[in-house]
Amino acid sequence: MENILKENERIDDLQLNNLKIIQRTDGFCFGIDSVLLSDFSKNIKKNCSVVDLGTGTGIISVLLCAKTNLKKIYGVEIQEEIADMAARTSKLNQLEDKFEVLNCDIKNLDKVIGRESVNYVVTNPPYKKSNSGLTNENEIKLISRHEIKADLSDFIKISFKILKDKGTIFMVHRPERLTDIIFEMRKNKIEPKRIRFVHSDTESEPKLVLIEGVKNGKPFLKIEKPLYIYNKDRSYTDEIMKIYNKI
Amino acid sequence: MENILKENERIDDLQLNNLKIIQRTDGFCFGIDSVLLSDFSKNIKKNCSVVDLGTGTGIISVLLCAKTNLKKIYGVEIQEEIADMAARTSKLNQLEDKFEVLNCDIKNLDKVIGRESVNYVVTNPPYKKSNSGLTNENEIKLISRHEIKADLSDFIKISFKILKDKGTIFMVHRPERLTDIIFEMRKNKIEPKRIRFVHSDTESEPKLVLIEGVKNGKPFLKIEKPLYIYNKDRSYTDEIMKIYNKI
Repeated sequence: MENILKENERIDDLQLNNLKIIQRTDGFCFGIDSVLLSDFSKNIKKNCSVVDLGTGTGIISVLLCAKTNLKKIYGVEIQEEIADMAARTSKLNQLEDKFEVLNCDIKNLDKVIGRESVNYVVTNPPYKKSNSGLTNENEIKLISRHEIKADLSDFIKISFKILKDKGTIFMVHRPERLTDIIFEMRKNKIEPKRIRFVHSDTESEPKLVLIEGVKNGKPFLKIEKPLYIYNKDRSYTDEIMKIYNKI
Repeated sequence: MENILKENERIDDLQLNNLKIIQRTDGFCFGIDSVLLSDFSKNIKKNCSVVDLGTGTGIISVLLCAKTNLKKIYGVEIQEEIADMAARTSKLNQLEDKFEVLNCDIKNLDKVIGRESVNYVVTNPPYKKSNSGLTNENEIKLISRHEIKADLSDFIKISFKILKDKGTIFMVHRPERLTDIIFEMRKNKIEPKRIRFVHSDTESEPKLVLIEGVKNGKPFLKIEKPLYIYNKDRSYTDEIMKIYNKI
């Protein structure tokens, strides 16, 4: 098993269907964002095709393989080293037939898999603008977190191109980017249909936002009840326990 | 006192600085929306000019006269009968110098008060699209609730015209219209800066949304912690009690 790992990598057990994930010990490890997004997207219909835009280590793709009956999920990752890690995670879990990693720029994806070719897009894009809060992070973290190779508008434009009519996008992002997300979606004919905010607890502002949009959908937005992570005593809420127990 | 009232009208005591409001007994009475919007807008700076777009009975204008040190507030109302009622409410409260009612179409307001002439806009616009959910309501209620005389885009476009550079708009609306609000604001160079959702309780979806936008503002949205109306035992929350005690 160990020779599937390169230097500075480790295997973590997802405690779900015996699935595992390869992550860097010094890099960007998956977080609650990915777990919540895969839960938010779990109503993906069976035998459908999905694209995970900016898949990183492949965590969302692996979780969706376990939680849904999807036919095929393409994990698109521009960083070669990370794409290779995701491909090894696919192999490690014997998901090669279902989870295929594409090491390419999302902006060219319509040329790789074809226009109007998929039913769903799931994406956890870089949260920060390329000019905001740059620090001395290593390059992998930088590209994963900041809009360096592609910005929010690129993620939404390519989603419109590759989605079939009435196809659905699921996204997780930061609440302070909500204006950008809603504006870019509607401008590009992806109508926001469902939003859920994620709060630490009932007394705090949201830390994350989950959004579902439909290509060429009719305007009507449903904002769902908040998702709280912690109870007052700092234990996890029942809903979070339920989401994590499923992992 | 009674001859200030017309048929089917009554005077309600706002229990704040001895202020009163004239309302129809069979019409559209002010609700929690107006109270929450005036609280959300209470940081209006002193000696500033304000426009209350679609003032109705004038409730928001009267509350803001009490809660802030504004210099002048113009209540704009297209329905003559309602505008007349609001003007009598202004007189009843001896607010004629501060609260002036303009019986005109909001779309012509720049010609009435001038372009780039005010610091703030507050508005509780009609919530429903003109083609949605029409019933046998009377005409006054219909125009107050549905986008018959002006739609959301009209409210935002005229706000841009009458606001000074960096002037602020405060709006209350329904959450299902959030996409329309955010899209129209940014399209018309009013940047959403602050949003607060209002929920019945911690376990329910939002019923109202409060939004602050700034003309020519820089993009950065702050979504505040939720405002809950009720505790679990259906008593009012401390925050609501505080807002209402101020009335």
